Amino acid sequence: MSPSLDEVRAMDAADPLRACRERFFLPEGVIYLDGNSLGVLPMATMGRQREVVESEWGEELIRSWNSRGWIEAPQRVGAKIAPLIGAKANEVIVADSTSVNLFKLIVAAAALAPDRPVLLSEAGNFHTDLHIASGAAELARLRLDIAPRGEIEARLGADTNLLLLTHVHFKAGFRFDMAEMTARARAVGARVIWDLSHSAGAVPLDLNGSGAELAVGCGYKYLNGGPGAPSFLYVAESLQERLMSPLRGWMGHAAPFAFTDDYRPAPGIARFLAGTPPILGLAALECGVEAFAGAPVDRLWAKSIRLFDLFAALVEAHCPALTCISPREPERRGSHISFAHPHAFEICQALIADGVIGDFRAPDVIRFGLTPLYLGFEDIWEAVQRMRSILDSGRWREPRFAVRGKVT
Amino acid sequence: MSPSLDEVRAMDAADPLRACRERFFLPEGVIYLDGNSLGVLPMATMGRQREVVESEWGEELIRSWNSRGWIEAPQRVGAKIAPLIGAKANEVIVADSTSVNLFKLIVAAAALAPDRPVLLSEAGNFHTDLHIASGAAELARLRLDIAPRGEIEARLGADTNLLLLTHVHFKAGFRFDMAEMTARARAVGARVIWDLSHSAGAVPLDLNGSGAELAVGCGYKYLNGGPGAPSFLYVAESLQERLMSPLRGWMGHAAPFAFTDDYRPAPGIARFLAGTPPILGLAALECGVEAFAGAPVDRLWAKSIRLFDLFAALVEAHCPALTCISPREPERRGSHISFAHPHAFEICQALIADGVIGDFRAPDVIRFGLTPLYLGFEDIWEAVQRMRSILDSGRWREPRFAVRGKVT
Repeated sequence: MSPSLDEVRAMDAADPLRACRERFFLPEGVIYLDGNSLGVLPMATMGRQREVVESEWGEELIRSWNSRGWIEAPQRVGAKIAPLIGAKANEVIVADSTSVNLFKLIVAAAALAPDRPVLLSEAGNFHTDLHIASGAAELARLRLDIAPRGEIEARLGADTNLLLLTHVHFKAGFRFDMAEMTARARAVGARVIWDLSHSAGAVPLDLNGSGAELAVGCGYKYLNGGPGAPSFLYVAESLQERLMSPLRGWMGHAAPFAFTDDYRPAPGIARFLAGTPPILGLAALECGVEAFAGAPVDRLWAKSIRLFDLFAALVEAHCPALTCISPREPERRGSHISFAHPHAFEICQALIADGVIGDFRAPDVIRFGLTPLYLGFEDIWEAVQRMRSILDSGRWREPRFAVRGKVT
Repeated sequence: MSPSLDEVRAMDAADPLRACRERFFLPEGVIYLDGNSLGVLPMATMGRQREVVESEWGEELIRSWNSRGWIEAPQRVGAKIAPLIGAKANEVIVADSTSVNLFKLIVAAAALAPDRPVLLSEAGNFHTDLHIASGAAELARLRLDIAPRGEIEARLGADTNLLLLTHVHFKAGFRFDMAEMTARARAVGARVIWDLSHSAGAVPLDLNGSGAELAVGCGYKYLNGGPGAPSFLYVAESLQERLMSPLRGWMGHAAPFAFTDDYRPAPGIARFLAGTPPILGLAALECGVEAFAGAPVDRLWAKSIRLFDLFAALVEAHCPALTCISPREPERRGSHISFAHPHAFEICQALIADGVIGDFRAPDVIRFGLTPLYLGFEDIWEAVQRMRSILDSGRWREPRFAVRGKVT
């Protein structure tokens, strides 16, 4: 028996995170189930962006590097992300894109074990991770071994230098057990690099407690940092001084303004900075992270589980043509729910036309992000009702929904 | 004889670029001579940032990747930069930081000549270039040879793979003859990578006409793109298909949304993209570049020469303690003027306290950016008068001006 609308409304009324919704700008008429692709705009970001553009840049100009804390922004925002992922404040920094940060960590960490020739990752991992890995592997003289998920453990061995895993899979949402996989890798002497893009800000993470040493993650998904927000990078304290970034920009130098020809890495996490920090993006990301105030990840995750269960139950009851491909057990998944359908593309387009924004992932998946900070249970109810109407009426067959243009 | 105030005002009255000043927000009471470090805020940027944050991100959310042209922004803004540097629209793209783009080009271009082991650059080049070069050289198995300017030509030879030069030197402003140095390098079979950070938007550039094949440049200096703006990258059309970026992110893939494990570079310049484009930064940079409308580089440069000559003449007349270290001949320099003084640091601090913003460059240089789009001749007059007062009174000796904290 799937819940009734009254029951769903009661869930919202009892939701301890309900008030957090007010922190975000949620456009009229839209049910936004794509916060795992681009998080929504925090209300505070609007004023903060005006301040950083008009006052800090416009009025203060170059002086803001010191007087408005621009120069410390990468560390400061990193330190604010740290509690969301179970890291120490000095273990996280914000810089560049996830792709670029991944490159840094692969090349830097591979150098610690020059006798181990293999970089192991998962087939079907988010493709930018595999592409970056292929480029990094060539330069670091590693062999890239891309294995199906079920074979990864068996392939770990004495030749494994690094294991590159995405914690929560972008498509169906399968989640690795971080502590277990880290331990397995360490048992054969290999290191793991975790991509937390679909985890950070949604799924409970305890990098320190899991023995994780290296990670990157995305700023524009659950962290609500805005389109193309800079990324974060984590290196366990114990490893920081042993790594050299291959991207030795001046901001990672021990004395960026000494203007010396020789490179000397900054102590600690700062050595993973490269060029000048992107201040507009950093300011927006800082607001996104601050929007988590008073909303601990455990509470977010408890709500995510209930959003997921509600979504799954309603789809099962009302949209039987869709097959849930996400794991049902909370500990085995992330904070999105995905369904397979041979016409997933058209259904997704019809949903968007009806104001329900999820996204299509080739070849046959519709994916919905469950963002407990700002989604209500009634949003899920309404989304499924609209989907039911699209499926029952066959409206998704309208030719306009089959037009494939540029997609994201 | 240095000009009088009346003569200086007449220069402003006759300045064909005078109206461009209205395009920028120039704070009251400040004479900003640091636009070569951080360009000022264009008026249009304020409204555009609000639009991109509040409407495009806030209202349209993920749909803006297509509906508001986010996905094409790197190419679109690159194409707008192209005429400022003498390149074709399809030869320039905006991505990442200058440091990261430099890394891409060094590694990609070095692979074209695997039998040539040397990466040659200049001692005292902007240090991030040398640091990035050192990291890239290690990975590309190159030997980094850092030569004094006067020895560069002699060191070019059959073993030179790449010559990395900054077109206009960040400190004194010495400028290389791009066509000549490119020809010299090509004569021995080497390629040149140009860093245009202190040239683009100020100095006449004709990359195509000079035979330049590879270049990077900064978005936040003369291009007015805002703090930490993304950088641009140029690859001559003839070379694009032969280069593989070492940073193979999904946005440089031929089909970013096909989600395939294999990497296949996009055709043309797009292959130099890595991660998701930083939309807030790109939007600001686009406004900065659009502020050049109707102000051709030749006209800007003609005004820059006059600003320089006025500055030099006034300092010579009124501040004899300062030694101009920038070349006097326009064709040998960029659009800033630098002076040496044993107490450059303190004088610079005293100037800032008096509202004249230039910057100090270790160990003994004060540098002033001459940005013809928004500086007037009377600004130069007033700046030199304030400097004269600081020097004549010895006010720079006040202990507060000797405090060395964080500097940029």
